[in-house]
Amino acid sequence: MRVGLDVGGTKTDAVAVDEGGSIVGRVRLATGWGADAVVGTVLEAVAALGMQSAVTGRPIESVGIGIPGQIEPGSARVVHAVNLGVAELDLAAVVGPRLGAPIHVENDVKAAAYGAYVLHGGSGSMAYLNLGTGIAAGIVSDGSLWRGARGTAGEVGHISVDPSGPLCRCGQRGCIEALAGGGAIAERWAHPGALPVRDVYDAADAGDGNARNLRAGLARGVAAAVRVLVLTADVDAVVLGGGVTALGARLMGDVSAELAASAEASPFMRSLHLEQRVELLPAGSPAAALGAALVGASTGGPVRGAAEALTRG
Amino acid sequence: MRVGLDVGGTKTDAVAVDEGGSIVGRVRLATGWGADAVVGTVLEAVAALGMQSAVTGRPIESVGIGIPGQIEPGSARVVHAVNLGVAELDLAAVVGPRLGAPIHVENDVKAAAYGAYVLHGGSGSMAYLNLGTGIAAGIVSDGSLWRGARGTAGEVGHISVDPSGPLCRCGQRGCIEALAGGGAIAERWAHPGALPVRDVYDAADAGDGNARNLRAGLARGVAAAVRVLVLTADVDAVVLGGGVTALGARLMGDVSAELAASAEASPFMRSLHLEQRVELLPAGSPAAALGAALVGASTGGPVRGAAEALTRG
Repeated sequence: MRVGLDVGGTKTDAVAVDEGGSIVGRVRLATGWGADAVVGTVLEAVAALGMQSAVTGRPIESVGIGIPGQIEPGSARVVHAVNLGVAELDLAAVVGPRLGAPIHVENDVKAAAYGAYVLHGGSGSMAYLNLGTGIAAGIVSDGSLWRGARGTAGEVGHISVDPSGPLCRCGQRGCIEALAGGGAIAERWAHPGALPVRDVYDAADAGDGNARNLRAGLARGVAAAVRVLVLTADVDAVVLGGGVTALGARLMGDVSAELAASAEASPFMRSLHLEQRVELLPAGSPAAALGAALVGASTGGPVRGAAEALTRG
Repeated sequence: MRVGLDVGGTKTDAVAVDEGGSIVGRVRLATGWGADAVVGTVLEAVAALGMQSAVTGRPIESVGIGIPGQIEPGSARVVHAVNLGVAELDLAAVVGPRLGAPIHVENDVKAAAYGAYVLHGGSGSMAYLNLGTGIAAGIVSDGSLWRGARGTAGEVGHISVDPSGPLCRCGQRGCIEALAGGGAIAERWAHPGALPVRDVYDAADAGDGNARNLRAGLARGVAAAVRVLVLTADVDAVVLGGGVTALGARLMGDVSAELAASAEASPFMRSLHLEQRVELLPAGSPAAALGAALVGASTGGPVRGAAEALTRG
């Protein structure tokens, strides 16, 4: 039995994966704030999973933890997990002895990329584009996560696609994230609310000019990220996930229209069939937790098995 | 003995590589125009190599041919090699029987990427960014060429980085190639000459406003391509090659200044140390011919051996 956790800024999603790669248990709970509370959340999630009937009494081989922060290469040490109130935390050292299993820690977007790849069939190549407060991607090819040389593979959010575009928090102008990041849009919209990007969409539908600009920028930024991923890494598919994708078909419609417009203008872009290569991760998908369970599991694993089991079930 | 050829629009470069991976013979000759003449050039180059003392009498295990065109996947069939006047040509079928060796055909930029990687030390990850008439890159990681799903990996030239930028021949606006491609610059400069980009540099030095704009756009486009390659694929190094790099230090100075400016504006960009990751392929490097010899060779091969041999020699 492998356990995988997706420790998010507000919620933690945990799954138990059996030897055949099937998800046999799942729990979701609120994430605590700060290093101690995050550790508490991890322990609580694993305990809650252990009480599920299909999981009880079966030994835990490994625990994979996906977390929104930088992971020091070759370690389970998280730094700068600002959304969790964590400056620095060695999860293996703190959590490992309590759970009696090897701990693997993975950046949350990379974990989600790996899980989405498994759910997508576990073959060929795929980019997972996470549209959340920020924007980043993970690339998986032939069953392996592309890690890159220094941990910045997939950081497409900070590619500038418009020198006259809005200022990005990174200091550049017209970054994909400045156009399409949930945080940047919320800041420029400046109306408080639980889901500012949905407000923007609603206000745009009601004719608000500022909202229309923000909404157009979002589609433009996402389409640019899709083009960057296909033209650089030539992945078979780009799967969109993250909080902003709660907009579902409204977002996909805008992104498709943007990709169709560039295909209309350019025979070369048309030949790439980008519209057909973009997909939405289903709402409530356990991709990140599943990916965390599988990607760093010391024993390797039946990637295709998991995909088949999930497709069947 | 493996033979590798880089069949360019004007010149063909051919090398013979021994079992240890060392280059033991090299010839350069003019490339013929049209399918028959290209076949003639290939045969002539191999014959000329065979007359060099270190090559004479040693059997040819394989012949790799790098060529500026699309290669049909899994074949040695070239299509749309417009710079060679070739609409379609099956090099294996035509040349193979005449040379009595297996023929492997590779896109020229991908061959150069592989060769540059070997010359660069043959470890880690590297992107080769070819600055010629057009702009394209090849990515090599852990000794393998990243081929992508449909043959467009590394086509960073057609990523738009400025919606108000110049129209690209592909139909989009502000593509990296529209800013920095030798063909696009020559077209906008519109003064006939052997090396229009050098004319542009000279005229910019002499104060010509149009030339200064074109020169600034070239640096901006190259810097954008470097950022795209590092932020998407996170390669250790980006090696610049191709006809435009004949500008040497003048080009590198401009590109470094452009990268320094974005590092100045953005702590995130500064953390990537892009200036230190960009290098120039030495003038006259046999990268493409060497890559053609090694990348598709049926017997695999001592990649590191080649690098060491070349470094020693």
